[in-house]
Amino acid sequence: MLETDTIAAISTAPGEAGIAVIRVSGPQSLAVADKIFKCRPPLPSGKKAGALLYGHVVDSGRVIDEAILLIMRAPHSYTREDVVEFQCHGGTIASKRILRTILKHNVRPAEPGEFTKRAFLNGRIDLLQAEAVMDMIKAQTDKGADLALEQLRGRLSCSLEDIYGDMLRACADIEASLDFMDDELLPSFYKSIQKRLANAQRKIKDLIGTYDEGHIIKDGALVVITGKPNVGKSSLLNALLGKERVIVSPVPGTTRDTIEEHVVIKGIPVRLVDTAGLRHSKCEIEKEGVRRARTAISGADLILYVIDGSKNLSAGELKSILGIPDNKLIIVKNKTDIGNRNLPESLRLIRVSETQLIYNKGLTNLKKTLANKLHASKRHISNVVISERHRHILITADRLMTDAIEMMKKSDESLLAIIAQKLRQASEQIGGLTGKNFYSEMLNSIFNRFCVGK
Amino acid sequence: MLETDTIAAISTAPGEAGIAVIRVSGPQSLAVADKIFKCRPPLPSGKKAGALLYGHVVDSGRVIDEAILLIMRAPHSYTREDVVEFQCHGGTIASKRILRTILKHNVRPAEPGEFTKRAFLNGRIDLLQAEAVMDMIKAQTDKGADLALEQLRGRLSCSLEDIYGDMLRACADIEASLDFMDDELLPSFYKSIQKRLANAQRKIKDLIGTYDEGHIIKDGALVVITGKPNVGKSSLLNALLGKERVIVSPVPGTTRDTIEEHVVIKGIPVRLVDTAGLRHSKCEIEKEGVRRARTAISGADLILYVIDGSKNLSAGELKSILGIPDNKLIIVKNKTDIGNRNLPESLRLIRVSETQLIYNKGLTNLKKTLANKLHASKRHISNVVISERHRHILITADRLMTDAIEMMKKSDESLLAIIAQKLRQASEQIGGLTGKNFYSEMLNSIFNRFCVGK
Repeated sequence: MLETDTIAAISTAPGEAGIAVIRVSGPQSLAVADKIFKCRPPLPSGKKAGALLYGHVVDSGRVIDEAILLIMRAPHSYTREDVVEFQCHGGTIASKRILRTILKHNVRPAEPGEFTKRAFLNGRIDLLQAEAVMDMIKAQTDKGADLALEQLRGRLSCSLEDIYGDMLRACADIEASLDFMDDELLPSFYKSIQKRLANAQRKIKDLIGTYDEGHIIKDGALVVITGKPNVGKSSLLNALLGKERVIVSPVPGTTRDTIEEHVVIKGIPVRLVDTAGLRHSKCEIEKEGVRRARTAISGADLILYVIDGSKNLSAGELKSILGIPDNKLIIVKNKTDIGNRNLPESLRLIRVSETQLIYNKGLTNLKKTLANKLHASKRHISNVVISERHRHILITADRLMTDAIEMMKKSDESLLAIIAQKLRQASEQIGGLTGKNFYSEMLNSIFNRFCVGK
Repeated sequence: MLETDTIAAISTAPGEAGIAVIRVSGPQSLAVADKIFKCRPPLPSGKKAGALLYGHVVDSGRVIDEAILLIMRAPHSYTREDVVEFQCHGGTIASKRILRTILKHNVRPAEPGEFTKRAFLNGRIDLLQAEAVMDMIKAQTDKGADLALEQLRGRLSCSLEDIYGDMLRACADIEASLDFMDDELLPSFYKSIQKRLANAQRKIKDLIGTYDEGHIIKDGALVVITGKPNVGKSSLLNALLGKERVIVSPVPGTTRDTIEEHVVIKGIPVRLVDTAGLRHSKCEIEKEGVRRARTAISGADLILYVIDGSKNLSAGELKSILGIPDNKLIIVKNKTDIGNRNLPESLRLIRVSETQLIYNKGLTNLKKTLANKLHASKRHISNVVISERHRHILITADRLMTDAIEMMKKSDESLLAIIAQKLRQASEQIGGLTGKNFYSEMLNSIFNRFCVGK
């Protein structure tokens, strides 16, 4: 299982900054540092763990940067392997050149998430904690970071251990009874196991229930702005962002590309997408824009459908609006300073937010409505939430549990073997969440979403 | 001179990444670490310098991240003050929250470049080295980083010390002679000083000469793509970038905003600007685009004027082209697969590069022409180059030297006092470069271009 090669990557974000860090992990780490890092004697490998050295990184006798070297020795490191880190000048070039120099010495570039993968494979953290590392890095809000940190500190792992334990015990009881098939099983036997399973299933369902709220906090809500040309979609995007991101003009069809921006609205991370106006156009550029708009709408968590409040709704607009599920829709009635026409009766159940974007009016209300629609501002959010991967697995486990419980209700001894098998399958699923059972494709699918250098 | 407050900033670039670093410098650094960093006893302030501690950052009893703490004690640190660094999870939130926590404890946010400014004020580096830090971070090419590193290691400082020394010696000789005004001065006296001054001035002029090549390596060349609508300007931008940055279409006027991208062409960092097509338009959006285009052209190091090779040059194009200095101009004759008309005789001295951008043809040649025009690929580049600030100061010093030398040629004792004054002024200028003499506005103007956290 253990990797034996040495890996390296730039672990800080690219860009102009004071500091960049290059991380190296594996058995060759200190040998590499000895070769390319010049500091006061002794060599880095002769220094003790937890040391911090000032010196120069040298490639073929040429100094390529001043740097600080951090030495961590196995198992007291992020990966539980020998780790060295070079802290050098930020920006693009210095860190790239140091990495290039390191890679000349029997070291290969790390895959995305490979340092964390090693921390998992070497048993320092479980799979849920590994995933939490990336959630922590991707968090866009305090709440998101808190949830990630709870998971990183083992909160979700504990909940699952608990469920896993319940299931294993039920399994063991059933399997024990299979060894004594000659004795008649008492009704209380079925009852007690059934109760234990129902208990575990309830915990599974509770966890599944955390997904909806959790996913918006973790991944951000996809909010799409759409509507006919020239109703003020780009003005709305600019207003929500608080900056002039997009050129706005009184000419219909000004926006052509689909524009995506990230913004936090009332503590909720939002991916805000401004689409091209939905109209038939002979212009190829606009047609492509409209195609992209339709794609964005279909995956949205919420749609802000902008209309011109001073005009009657067109048949086309009404048709589009009725095609969107109510719970995903807010109508933004703009230009109500010019005129404020009533909406058709068929839309009476839909949330409407009136704005005069030209004067930046109506925004506070709209933001409130938006946050309410996305639920996160009202509901209590538990400290444990799950991701899409977890949900998928838990739903599978839940189904297996339902099967097992249904069969258990029949109090039929001949079903016990198959019940035990269902339970084993369900507990394997749960075990897979924390990494008790895993296969390498699963690991790849998890660590692929990491950034390089973690 | 010495600052006594404690400052902190996030020193790594923002963005999703494995690691972020928050740097704290000043007398309170260790006290802050004691308050917010939980690790195995003793407290951070009880640990020795050069230590690396694992622990948790805590705010009001709540853990906000796992982190590694780096302890550096005055004077063995970047700023020569007590410094602690928190290495935490990358991304946006973790580092921001740690910084926020630090700032609750008698620490203020660092100004851009303030850590380096302290390194300068505390005498660890001179002003040229401080500037080199930012050049190092901003470097976009190996060559740029090499130059910055040379300056950081004191190469330019040495050259200037040398000049400064020459000037001070000449000054001292003249001032000594002023004390003995009764003796007749020998012609050899004037000769020897004149020679010494000429020598120093030659070195100054050599340094000034490094600016042109240096500035392109440091700051990047501004290359502007312009021409009539629909000749292929955006296609050229995409081709040079090697990606589909801009929507291209056969519809004239597709590009409206001025688009700027960075790219390295044959080792030269280039800021590539695609402008809106230069045409008269009634559309307000396009008019604004054309205005922005004209601004970009006026500041360019090089202009790629794209024309449609299959058509005759219009009178308007010819007029525009003739308005651009030859040494800043390359004509990109595109669409030569469709037709290849001759250019008017008046343009025979201008470099023309033929392309068929629709097939990605002619690019290699164009890049070569571009690099040659920007000179950097041919000329030998010395290891010392100067910035705009240095050039400005050296030109002032050069003028003062010319004055002094001219007066010296007159071998007139009555001029010696004023010559000495000119030389003092000149050497003050040179001293100002390394920071021997400085005023706070000068420092501010230098450190303002830094990023926060360095």
